[in-house]
Amino acid sequence: MKGLCLVTDRALCAPRTVEEVVRLAVQGGATSVQLRDKDLPTRAFLETAERLHAFLRPRGVPLIINDRVDIALAVGAEGIHVGQDDLPPEVVRRLAGPGVLVGLSVETWEDVVRAQDQPVDYLGVSPVYGTPTKTDTKGAWGLDGLARIRAFSRHPLVAIGGLHAGTIPGVVQAGADGIAVVSALCAAPDPERAARELAALC
Amino acid sequence: MKGLCLVTDRALCAPRTVEEVVRLAVQGGATSVQLRDKDLPTRAFLETAERLHAFLRPRGVPLIINDRVDIALAVGAEGIHVGQDDLPPEVVRRLAGPGVLVGLSVETWEDVVRAQDQPVDYLGVSPVYGTPTKTDTKGAWGLDGLARIRAFSRHPLVAIGGLHAGTIPGVVQAGADGIAVVSALCAAPDPERAARELAALC
Repeated sequence: MKGLCLVTDRALCAPRTVEEVVRLAVQGGATSVQLRDKDLPTRAFLETAERLHAFLRPRGVPLIINDRVDIALAVGAEGIHVGQDDLPPEVVRRLAGPGVLVGLSVETWEDVVRAQDQPVDYLGVSPVYGTPTKTDTKGAWGLDGLARIRAFSRHPLVAIGGLHAGTIPGVVQAGADGIAVVSALCAAPDPERAARELAALC
Repeated sequence: MKGLCLVTDRALCAPRTVEEVVRLAVQGGATSVQLRDKDLPTRAFLETAERLHAFLRPRGVPLIINDRVDIALAVGAEGIHVGQDDLPPEVVRRLAGPGVLVGLSVETWEDVVRAQDQPVDYLGVSPVYGTPTKTDTKGAWGLDGLARIRAFSRHPLVAIGGLHAGTIPGVVQAGADGIAVVSALCAAPDPERAARELAALC
């Protein structure tokens, strides 16, 4: 999970569709896409995932589904990302098998310690900085927290939360393997240009 | 899917837990339980499903999970119920395999016709009567609609929507194989007694 990951937010993408923003961001250099939608009815979520996968797969860009293991299995997504309130990683791994990437958000030090024995492929360090797009987290890690996780954890780390051109260099310096952004791409006036700028910093 | 199916509604069960209402309803004679919750975080949904399954399985009462195929697979539930906005039955069947019951809500005549070629085990005729507990349906079938589906469809029919002691006899007469209720059990002052009364009519 190196490089620049676009995490989708339908409201921030509007009036553009999620598909349109994904297309532009990938053209600009985003190297993975996480489809996240906590409100969409299941059928519409599935159809969005199918459309994204049809675009991403031929380009070798992994599609990661947030939370919904059933939708990930239905479309054959490359990965599944879960938070601490979603299915436990052990259950995700059991349902999805060994060939699917499993990412886990860590919001507390306990989460990080527990993750060392969990069958996950990367940790989402969430949030590095405070962010308006996710309101259910437990406080920001900061660069110190990220560096502390880097020194302790066996996993690749994907940083998320308040990341943009001004903050990404410090986060990479502190040990992030990958950079995930929501607003910096979904709300960008020109997502392709924004992705090009951010990918160069990852 | 004969008999009396309790479809859960967490808000209507309160201040009792869903588990408590399920326990009482099954003691009273409910013969299946559909866990439905569109708002609960995934982990909490999973934990509720696990607790219900631990209670129901030794009693031979099937647990049907609404919408969330991943949770159904995780707990080994006996069935999955989907609506027209959930995963298509073909996808559910592919993910769940042949041994799991798949139920499908039909809200229009087109749904009924399409269902004849879909891999489902029963149809949920929804709603037979108007109901305050489900606001996203397209108009009530009435007894005439139910009888029309009965004459046409190859599937067992589970009626739902506005069913209580006063309406169940007519619905059974019109051809329902099973009766599903939400309010009549979840909001009952004494769910065990209510289930006993309703089960005798099914």
